[in-house]
Amino acid sequence: MPLTGESIIAGTPTPGSAGTFTAVDPRTGGALDPQVSCLAPDEVQLATRAAAEAFPAYRATTPEARAGFLEAIADEIEALGDELLERAHAETALPLARLQGERGRTCGQLRLFAGVVRQGDHLGVRIDQALPERAPLPRPDLRVRHIALGPVAVFGASNFPLAFSTAGGDTASALAAGCPVVVKAHNAHPGTGELVAQAVARAAERTGMPAGVFSLVFGLGTELGAALVTDPRIQAVGFTGSRAGGLALVAAAAGRPQPIPVYAEMSSTNPVILLEGALAGDPRPLAAAYLASLTSGSGQFCTNPGLLFLPQGAAGDAFLAAVADEAAQTPGQTMLTPQIHAAFGAGIERLGAHPSVQTIAQGLAGAESNAPAPMVFATQLAALAEDHGLTEEVFGAAGLVVRFDDAARLAEYLADLEGQLTATIHATEGDEGQAALLLPVLETRVGRILFNGWPTGVEVTHAMVHGGPFPATSDARATSVGTLAIERFQRPVCYQDVPAALLPPPVRDDNPWRLRRRVEGELE
Amino acid sequence: MPLTGESIIAGTPTPGSAGTFTAVDPRTGGALDPQVSCLAPDEVQLATRAAAEAFPAYRATTPEARAGFLEAIADEIEALGDELLERAHAETALPLARLQGERGRTCGQLRLFAGVVRQGDHLGVRIDQALPERAPLPRPDLRVRHIALGPVAVFGASNFPLAFSTAGGDTASALAAGCPVVVKAHNAHPGTGELVAQAVARAAERTGMPAGVFSLVFGLGTELGAALVTDPRIQAVGFTGSRAGGLALVAAAAGRPQPIPVYAEMSSTNPVILLEGALAGDPRPLAAAYLASLTSGSGQFCTNPGLLFLPQGAAGDAFLAAVADEAAQTPGQTMLTPQIHAAFGAGIERLGAHPSVQTIAQGLAGAESNAPAPMVFATQLAALAEDHGLTEEVFGAAGLVVRFDDAARLAEYLADLEGQLTATIHATEGDEGQAALLLPVLETRVGRILFNGWPTGVEVTHAMVHGGPFPATSDARATSVGTLAIERFQRPVCYQDVPAALLPPPVRDDNPWRLRRRVEGELE
Repeated sequence: MPLTGESIIAGTPTPGSAGTFTAVDPRTGGALDPQVSCLAPDEVQLATRAAAEAFPAYRATTPEARAGFLEAIADEIEALGDELLERAHAETALPLARLQGERGRTCGQLRLFAGVVRQGDHLGVRIDQALPERAPLPRPDLRVRHIALGPVAVFGASNFPLAFSTAGGDTASALAAGCPVVVKAHNAHPGTGELVAQAVARAAERTGMPAGVFSLVFGLGTELGAALVTDPRIQAVGFTGSRAGGLALVAAAAGRPQPIPVYAEMSSTNPVILLEGALAGDPRPLAAAYLASLTSGSGQFCTNPGLLFLPQGAAGDAFLAAVADEAAQTPGQTMLTPQIHAAFGAGIERLGAHPSVQTIAQGLAGAESNAPAPMVFATQLAALAEDHGLTEEVFGAAGLVVRFDDAARLAEYLADLEGQLTATIHATEGDEGQAALLLPVLETRVGRILFNGWPTGVEVTHAMVHGGPFPATSDARATSVGTLAIERFQRPVCYQDVPAALLPPPVRDDNPWRLRRRVEGELE
Repeated sequence: MPLTGESIIAGTPTPGSAGTFTAVDPRTGGALDPQVSCLAPDEVQLATRAAAEAFPAYRATTPEARAGFLEAIADEIEALGDELLERAHAETALPLARLQGERGRTCGQLRLFAGVVRQGDHLGVRIDQALPERAPLPRPDLRVRHIALGPVAVFGASNFPLAFSTAGGDTASALAAGCPVVVKAHNAHPGTGELVAQAVARAAERTGMPAGVFSLVFGLGTELGAALVTDPRIQAVGFTGSRAGGLALVAAAAGRPQPIPVYAEMSSTNPVILLEGALAGDPRPLAAAYLASLTSGSGQFCTNPGLLFLPQGAAGDAFLAAVADEAAQTPGQTMLTPQIHAAFGAGIERLGAHPSVQTIAQGLAGAESNAPAPMVFATQLAALAEDHGLTEEVFGAAGLVVRFDDAARLAEYLADLEGQLTATIHATEGDEGQAALLLPVLETRVGRILFNGWPTGVEVTHAMVHGGPFPATSDARATSVGTLAIERFQRPVCYQDVPAALLPPPVRDDNPWRLRRRVEGELE
């Protein structure tokens, strides 16, 4: 099916009445066909109504049927073949190899979640049997399962056109939970979004799902997104993007007559701490690994290591010199959009001009447009305490190295750090005393703690947390990556003395879905 | 220890600088000694600082130590003996037998939660092992456990001076999760609150807990509570009370530089639906059971059956006649406070004067003060659609019976009902078609569905949900009763390639706490 440039609402291409735009190739600044037709804010109801209509049937699907739908989405995305990769490459300038990997992650995620849906532990079934003889009062029969919240609004992310957009982590986890999804497409990759939406629509049709289980809507500005989040049929929101964008959605959701949960993954500078032992020996491999993490994907990762804490002294100086040498060989890659490139330029200008900051490494400008040179700056720990603005995220391949001379003082500083997605410690056995001091402090500030690695590269698995205290996310109780993400879109319901014939399958005595259940507090 | 009338901060009676008040005996209107000394808003920091200081040590306690603390609280509350019951009776006018039961529930709850702490399933441990040979990239070692959010603010409830106040459900679940607690005492029962706070402080001292793990603060008006919720050290809020009070806390928490979760249990009219089969036979037992649930505790339960849907026709008429007969024998009981009595009076006046409402049953005024007669009103389903105000909660022993003639129309109405804690269906086998129509609708509107019972009486167990969609609560994803309540006060943290010596006990290879863990997605 060719690109129509129209919203895909319940399987049907649907033009809007609010004008058009075209995608831009960030390597050239050129326009990419077709014209994209924008919905007016009130037209978002076409999608939310369809989602609400699909909800009763979709949430009642069997594990097998729902898992089959998720797997069919993965199959249909793969069936798009090179057309998908080429379109995403044209719209984002992300390398084809990276996009191939991202497609693998996206489809792997859908299949992993299908496995969780079949297994059913996420339904959290609990049963406490009736105690008719209990005195002074008998105890009723009590059964709990988790049900889907309702239609979910998902906002596509600029930096993961596949894995965090149309059929990415938020969509996959909401669908796995039994929630219909309405995706607000990211305007930087509308064609990629439409191709994937067509794939989802085909999967829904092929597996007999109600068509309203999924829609993708196009719109300019913030009005359409606001209309989506404030639509009374929407019951939760998933978002990955800027802090300003996330906070606007949080405010809109909180201002509704019925407030709803917002899972916004917003901003993080992902501090990396190098302790003395990690600096022993040749500094060049460590410097190269740092720059590789900092510049991968043009630095446009939520987990980009924007802050690096480095001990004062000769070993730290040698590391910085190695960083400068390595950076001088490192070319810039085209950023996702001219706007993101402009914001990056403003960010590095702000840092470079700061009186407490030195520019210590500069890469090469890339050959194509919007491909700025990677940058590394340095400052002192004391300067951060004086100017909190220094630690603001610069989205892109820019790092700030912060020199410190005392781990206890660093721990004090980190205790007041804004919430982060990740923190990383590089240490050897001799550093364990300092690491043991830092670890419990970092636990309270971040969602994931790494040792001797780099925060970019997030595994999609059962034991991942891609979340963290505010403002890294709007809800530290959740993760947006990994199978635990499904639980965000559920709530518990208790059935008291409900007749056997009326109980939903997860809590029936005959346990038709063969779920593992908690009976009297103990798992069967 | 005699009552001091002072806040108990980290174990120490602490006077405030914001004036005094005295408790009132609602049966007589008379003052109860001692004078209670109020903290000024900025003095709440005495408690929050102590809580923040206690947090690192408290959250690191072993399961055995933390469980021992919870059990010691139960022991110390029991050791207060009749003094506690008599003080609570004087402050609330709740019957001694009810208070004895409530004390049993409170202590049973603490011991049940101690068992969960020892068992450790709530820590949600997940482990995905390293795959060093995986291509193209090795997979790191990933381990997840849940950690405590931080200090929690709890607001005592007027209607459960023991089970939902100082050491009630919110406090017990926050302490079980590893969060220090600061309780804002309810001003209707300050002496009860202080006695229990003294017991908690003794338990903390006896079990070697940091003193700041628990404080109780006194204050008038709303300023102290607002100061507590906006204190940057507080990381979550538990509240049971009015909708206005809950929404004010939600707004204050959302307006913080760092927003925090609020678990406010606010208001519910707990619809009960009588289907035709349930009306066959003698209507008197059903009418008596309805009135018993409606008037128990002077109707001051979150789960009071404020709305009852009754079929048109002779059987429904007979049920109403039986309700009127039964009510005429039912005396009022003293309400918790003169203010609550006044609000009840205004509520029944509003209903009684409504042009679409008939008064169909009236009880007897109680012998003591503030003991209004129970009331039952009736109206038609169509009237509810015309005036949403009709379904507003009247806190106390007042019921509104709504006549309907078609279950499908009733289902339509219920689909748009405000969120509720509970819904109840009375049905026999012949009603199963109608019940099957109503049940999935009710699932989306409530936290607990009962058959052939009454919503008052909430079991504290593993399979309870005392929660529900907004505005029944501010967060439908949680329950405030039952062991699932502990999980409200936690968040997940992931450890990636953390050296064995630095891993926290729940995720260590030797599993010193013998937890059941999820490895590669499957429970061990």
